[in-house]
Amino acid sequence: MLGGYTRKVLLVNLSKKKYEIKELSETLVKRYIGGSGLAAKLLYDLTDGTTDPLGEDNPLIFMTGPFTGTIIPTSARHAVVSKSPLTGIWAESDVGGSWGYELKRTGFDGIIIIGKAEKPVYIWIKNGEVEIKDAQHLWGIDTYDLDPLIKEETDPKAVVTCIGRAGENQVLLSSIMSDGANARVAGRCGLGAVMGSKKLKAIVVRGNQEVPIANPKELKKLVRQYAPIMAKEAKMFGKYGTSGGIEGHEEMMNFPIKNWYQERWPEGAKRINGIRMAETILTGRYYCKTCIIGCGREIEITKGPYAGVKGAGPEYETIGTLGGLCLIDNLEAIAKGSELCNRYGLDTISTGGVIAFAMEAYEKGIINQIDTEGLKLTWGNAEAMLVLIEKIAKKEGYMGRLLGQGVRKAAETLGQGVEEFAIHVKGLEFPAHDPRAYNGVALSYATSNRGACHLQGFTHGFEKSFTMPEIGINQPHPRHQIEGKGEFTAKLQDLMCLFDSLKLCKFAIIGGIKLTAMTDCYNAVTGLNLKNEDLMKIGERLYNLKRLYNVRCGISRKDDTLPPRLLTHKRGPNLPHLGKMLNDYYTFRNWNERGIPSREKLKELDLDKEAQRIKDQYFI
Amino acid sequence: MLGGYTRKVLLVNLSKKKYEIKELSETLVKRYIGGSGLAAKLLYDLTDGTTDPLGEDNPLIFMTGPFTGTIIPTSARHAVVSKSPLTGIWAESDVGGSWGYELKRTGFDGIIIIGKAEKPVYIWIKNGEVEIKDAQHLWGIDTYDLDPLIKEETDPKAVVTCIGRAGENQVLLSSIMSDGANARVAGRCGLGAVMGSKKLKAIVVRGNQEVPIANPKELKKLVRQYAPIMAKEAKMFGKYGTSGGIEGHEEMMNFPIKNWYQERWPEGAKRINGIRMAETILTGRYYCKTCIIGCGREIEITKGPYAGVKGAGPEYETIGTLGGLCLIDNLEAIAKGSELCNRYGLDTISTGGVIAFAMEAYEKGIINQIDTEGLKLTWGNAEAMLVLIEKIAKKEGYMGRLLGQGVRKAAETLGQGVEEFAIHVKGLEFPAHDPRAYNGVALSYATSNRGACHLQGFTHGFEKSFTMPEIGINQPHPRHQIEGKGEFTAKLQDLMCLFDSLKLCKFAIIGGIKLTAMTDCYNAVTGLNLKNEDLMKIGERLYNLKRLYNVRCGISRKDDTLPPRLLTHKRGPNLPHLGKMLNDYYTFRNWNERGIPSREKLKELDLDKEAQRIKDQYFI
Repeated sequence: MLGGYTRKVLLVNLSKKKYEIKELSETLVKRYIGGSGLAAKLLYDLTDGTTDPLGEDNPLIFMTGPFTGTIIPTSARHAVVSKSPLTGIWAESDVGGSWGYELKRTGFDGIIIIGKAEKPVYIWIKNGEVEIKDAQHLWGIDTYDLDPLIKEETDPKAVVTCIGRAGENQVLLSSIMSDGANARVAGRCGLGAVMGSKKLKAIVVRGNQEVPIANPKELKKLVRQYAPIMAKEAKMFGKYGTSGGIEGHEEMMNFPIKNWYQERWPEGAKRINGIRMAETILTGRYYCKTCIIGCGREIEITKGPYAGVKGAGPEYETIGTLGGLCLIDNLEAIAKGSELCNRYGLDTISTGGVIAFAMEAYEKGIINQIDTEGLKLTWGNAEAMLVLIEKIAKKEGYMGRLLGQGVRKAAETLGQGVEEFAIHVKGLEFPAHDPRAYNGVALSYATSNRGACHLQGFTHGFEKSFTMPEIGINQPHPRHQIEGKGEFTAKLQDLMCLFDSLKLCKFAIIGGIKLTAMTDCYNAVTGLNLKNEDLMKIGERLYNLKRLYNVRCGISRKDDTLPPRLLTHKRGPNLPHLGKMLNDYYTFRNWNERGIPSREKLKELDLDKEAQRIKDQYFI
Repeated sequence: MLGGYTRKVLLVNLSKKKYEIKELSETLVKRYIGGSGLAAKLLYDLTDGTTDPLGEDNPLIFMTGPFTGTIIPTSARHAVVSKSPLTGIWAESDVGGSWGYELKRTGFDGIIIIGKAEKPVYIWIKNGEVEIKDAQHLWGIDTYDLDPLIKEETDPKAVVTCIGRAGENQVLLSSIMSDGANARVAGRCGLGAVMGSKKLKAIVVRGNQEVPIANPKELKKLVRQYAPIMAKEAKMFGKYGTSGGIEGHEEMMNFPIKNWYQERWPEGAKRINGIRMAETILTGRYYCKTCIIGCGREIEITKGPYAGVKGAGPEYETIGTLGGLCLIDNLEAIAKGSELCNRYGLDTISTGGVIAFAMEAYEKGIINQIDTEGLKLTWGNAEAMLVLIEKIAKKEGYMGRLLGQGVRKAAETLGQGVEEFAIHVKGLEFPAHDPRAYNGVALSYATSNRGACHLQGFTHGFEKSFTMPEIGINQPHPRHQIEGKGEFTAKLQDLMCLFDSLKLCKFAIIGGIKLTAMTDCYNAVTGLNLKNEDLMKIGERLYNLKRLYNVRCGISRKDDTLPPRLLTHKRGPNLPHLGKMLNDYYTFRNWNERGIPSREKLKELDLDKEAQRIKDQYFI
């Protein structure tokens, strides 16, 4: 028996208001596992370099993994995959909460949405029964308010994933939100805009079917072995959330400040970190399903200008981008901004990035008060930040339209000289980790398949504290070291592909999880008998497949770079020597110097068939 | 008395068929000296970022310097300056021979051509008398054949600078040629196309006026002191010409091979170097006026497929680009290619670069035999190289039209993936020095005002053998060293601005010339009493003014880079850490991180007025 394998997929065609159930072959799921890995294969076959991300043909794929729905801690996750309207290339976003867990228990492993509804709809799935329901009365309602309304219409125990006004307006920074005010977010790459383009307000799921496990006893044993360690190791992380360490990040010049320009800001970091949050507005914490860490913050603001804020508190990335990047040191204002982004369905990372960009353009006189309709976009102006979030979500005014496209397109619109402080890679704004602080982060940002991303390599963790002996990382790789960084980064990217396809939270690493545990759990769930190397080979296949996808979209070495500011403006002692690292990285990956996987490598990874769809010229 | 100062300028309006004589103020010439420095100021005031390089408004400026026309060795030079049609930015090209010397002796220090003639014309200047003459009968005649024809029409001792068919056809790689078959070339930046756009076939000069010298005795004394040293130091250079050292260049991986991809090619270098030339086709050498080095090669091929080639032999750069870059190891074929380029008026550097690019595109299947009309563009195919030169010059067929635009535009035309081997900076193809061999060359290529250029910094010389104690270069700067390379490169660029405005050949450095000698000569010629520091400050002013010009054309940090191949593909041990060097370079220059000179620096350099024409936003 093949246990919790991802393979029954619901294919919904919104143009035709029809759906069908597709069984994926065992070969397919063995080769691509699930989550964003399996979705990569589907997207690769369903689209090409010319597909319009906001057109009818672009599929929006929700996919769980073999771990989803099981008792494995931090496994209640799913991937959302599509072609990104923000970047024009590969998009994946990994999200926790309980939606993926619940979807799995409806009997479906994933959902592929194609076409466009004529009028707003939502999809309601209960234990294998599917309904496409009218959502005209729900259009415009924010994601926190929508959650109870939709439960009322469907099932009090249903779980909702949905878009807010930003997604409805096809703002390119839009996210897809789950779990109402206990927000869990598929934030990156503008996937909310794809959902909005399909006029799909929400997907609501409720299930109580058992998830098949090949060897449930073995799995229980494994979980009993790892779970207590995880809970212990990640205790402080649970206590203060993702933002507990901000002062440390600031000190090592990893925390972003003033659009990546300023070196230090200790007084700011002191006011907006997770410990301060715990002392002030924190009311509790929340866990994703099956999680034993609980990094989610529950907050409430009861007085002052931001009274009324209640629910999910800001995470590290949000504080870094809406806070540090904009030089805003008011934690309550950041919490308000975070809630606005959640309610409207905006990626806080990209939104903070584009606001900081606007503040710098304002400082330089490239944007003036006529452009902003009177708003003073000065550094640290929290009110301006909140107004801009509203404008972006509502596509309102010149500022809303300009910034809602993201920094790359905004910079193109504003013209010359501005590229220098448009901080993105391949069109995706930076998360809150400085590539000058970690050479591995520099290389990850430059090469990650979805653009500037700290999670597709998670190198900073392994450059600071963690190890993964099974892939040769016996101790943390010194962060400013150049030598070996290419191999180190490539291996971690392959490993992260496994997290994203099995569906396991990367914070499990903080809990001490190792590859062997993942392999053991995978074997227990599926009844297979793989070795660590087998899984790593799949990870490598997935990484290369996503790269091939991007190659078809026109990506090559020229795009594997960082904005000039990060390569030439010093912050601390280090400036990443990207050329040297890229050379090592390509060599280790067996990609040619244009950044194209070699035919030899693709053959080795059993991707010959996929490679046939790439023009010959790329390979020589 | 202000001696050999550059200040009487002929302004010719070809649209109106009129000319006038302009006296430039003493202040102006004191601030900008002459040559490309003074021309920079004129170009800065006469054009802006929107000027069409091939339009009526773009001036084509020929400018001598205070040394031109004097007895100072290697001073018989002039600069050609305009806005480049190849790159869209600052263009200067420095050229020897005897034309500048002769122009100076007509009484004019420079010529500014504006407007466009209706039908082909040439300008004939004899001792202050100016004629705009019909050239319809000369249109289409090559530059070697034109020289005697025009002398017949004017004066047997006249000196001609002219364009060939490439310039007439406004091919963007066109050069401006002087001295007939003893060719001296203003090769870079496509200035021949500007001349062609004005329908100006030639400028012919003849003069016997004395060039005023403030302190002729002192100048004679200085020349007697320096000339013998120079002759001795540069002896081998004279003997074997610029290409004598090719085997050494190949060994240190400076000589370009196979479009900058291949590491070593000793067997090729053995067949195409200056010593081999001396043993085979060399018949003599020629000198620019006042030169005591004599690097010019006179060659003749009397048998075999290239019989008939006679006149100027190929230089180092030509052998590097038509030879090494294309993997062509047939010296006679290279000599034939060189002659074709000279006769048609094509820059051999850019032409070789674009042919190598085409060969790589052919290898990769991006260009096929249908595109080439049957031509096999295989590496090392000398016949293909010669055919392409013809096609480019004549703008013939798809290949001619595609490649005549230079590699940047050709790559844009061909589309994605191709940028990776389009080797240029700011649109200008690389000369034959590898930036991986010298970090200073890497930084020079990335920052030079006219694009990829080895002469605007001449750093390789000072990273290998030369010193310039007056500016702190007491010994050669180790070529793979990063530390101090920013300051080193910036200072040399400022110094080279002096060479290019005083008008002194950079090979005088091989002859051991030092800044003090230049200052002494300048004082002797002009009667001024400047110190080395005063001259260096002017050099810095000129460099910054040219940068400001480019800023107005949209240039910023994003353009100060190298093609990916040079940053990531290893050749030998070194990959230049460009980010770090640029950071040091900008800091030393007091430019902001976007590569814009700071207001403070511009004030210090007395460029406030010029800076006013730059938008505020650039400075913050």
